[in-house]
Amino acid sequence: MTVAVKALFFDVFGTLVDWRGSIAREARAVLEPRGHAIDWLAFADAWRGEYQGAMEEVRAGRKPFCKLDVLHRRNLDRILPRFDAEDVGEDDRRHLNLAWHRLDAWPDVSPALARLRRQYLVAPVSNGNVSLMVDLARRNSFTWDAILGAEFSGDYKPKLAVYRDAAEAFDLTPGHCLMVAAHSDDLAAAAAAGLRTAHVARPDEKGKGRGETAPEIDVDFAAMDLRDLAEKLSV
Amino acid sequence: MTVAVKALFFDVFGTLVDWRGSIAREARAVLEPRGHAIDWLAFADAWRGEYQGAMEEVRAGRKPFCKLDVLHRRNLDRILPRFDAEDVGEDDRRHLNLAWHRLDAWPDVSPALARLRRQYLVAPVSNGNVSLMVDLARRNSFTWDAILGAEFSGDYKPKLAVYRDAAEAFDLTPGHCLMVAAHSDDLAAAAAAGLRTAHVARPDEKGKGRGETAPEIDVDFAAMDLRDLAEKLSV
Repeated sequence: MTVAVKALFFDVFGTLVDWRGSIAREARAVLEPRGHAIDWLAFADAWRGEYQGAMEEVRAGRKPFCKLDVLHRRNLDRILPRFDAEDVGEDDRRHLNLAWHRLDAWPDVSPALARLRRQYLVAPVSNGNVSLMVDLARRNSFTWDAILGAEFSGDYKPKLAVYRDAAEAFDLTPGHCLMVAAHSDDLAAAAAAGLRTAHVARPDEKGKGRGETAPEIDVDFAAMDLRDLAEKLSV
Repeated sequence: MTVAVKALFFDVFGTLVDWRGSIAREARAVLEPRGHAIDWLAFADAWRGEYQGAMEEVRAGRKPFCKLDVLHRRNLDRILPRFDAEDVGEDDRRHLNLAWHRLDAWPDVSPALARLRRQYLVAPVSNGNVSLMVDLARRNSFTWDAILGAEFSGDYKPKLAVYRDAAEAFDLTPGHCLMVAAHSDDLAAAAAAGLRTAHVARPDEKGKGRGETAPEIDVDFAAMDLRDLAEKLSV
């Protein structure tokens, strides 16, 4: 690598935390006591299924920027009827919407992140809002130098400005920054913005064998997990 | 206090770090080897003296927002001739400008901040830019939940939006947030934005006996230092 990497930027949903298993668990905790019998993993998939479309409204300029929490809430209201759960009340909807603040990290993440932070500046560059990132960090013992990403930039990935704004916030050229993600489309955009790229395999992100086991594009590093990335970066 | 405080927001220059002594030291380290014999504390005072005027150009809308680093640089260029130092070259000016990234905390701050963080969300709400806050945090072992303040808001304190944006980033009403500062004007603005207020005495901030020993306005807490604030908040 010709330019020394100084900062690591992390995708969060899927890359650092298991959104699917956590959302299924949280939805069940809220809705099962209310008498709902639902395929909880299908519920998680349906909720996440509305994710890109909601952000696209903002990216395309058809709606002004709002926090991901707001988009998650609209998406929740949209999917509840599909699971015959339109009777869920306002308080439960609010609590359920914050399930995204209660996601658990993959087991390799917290120790590897602490290790990586000894050598690099680290920040999430996620589409999640600041309060969501703060809650995930507190829950999973992530220590960040700053919280960058969508809310800092006022737009959603994969818009290139989100990656560039993150580098600029750290006074770095994009080439000094390494985007770490389990999704090739995120990394392709980061590369287009001039960042270095590291793929982390999360083969079970969307269900058994339904995540990316390897990058679909050329990347600077391809790692099995975050511990493996730390090894590859010689930390 | 009727509303429970959930987040503490900190002013940084003067409140957490000794800008005057640190800038004097850093200016000396850069300029003395170049043959300059300057009253280093007067140099620090002169540089800081340009601070409010430069930000006011942005607050008033006469200039677009830029990082404080950029304003510090303009101010440095302005004061160097006053100290017969207009011959300082570009590289030295750049390095000297980053003196603001190399400020030392007052001795009470780092342990008290760690203690406060066990009970509250903590963030700087400073006019310093993100990279400056990151460097100060790394240097002085501050652990922040997020870096909020001027660069996050795109405007400078005491504009009320800066305080309100910080509360909003944490999904809190202003009344759940406590602004901590050694400057009554900062706290007056925070109160106007609906935040709670805590004054920290820094009697020697601007030279012996030339800082605020007590708040000049009504505040929720008045503390001798950050350790005393932790005691008063029963942490």
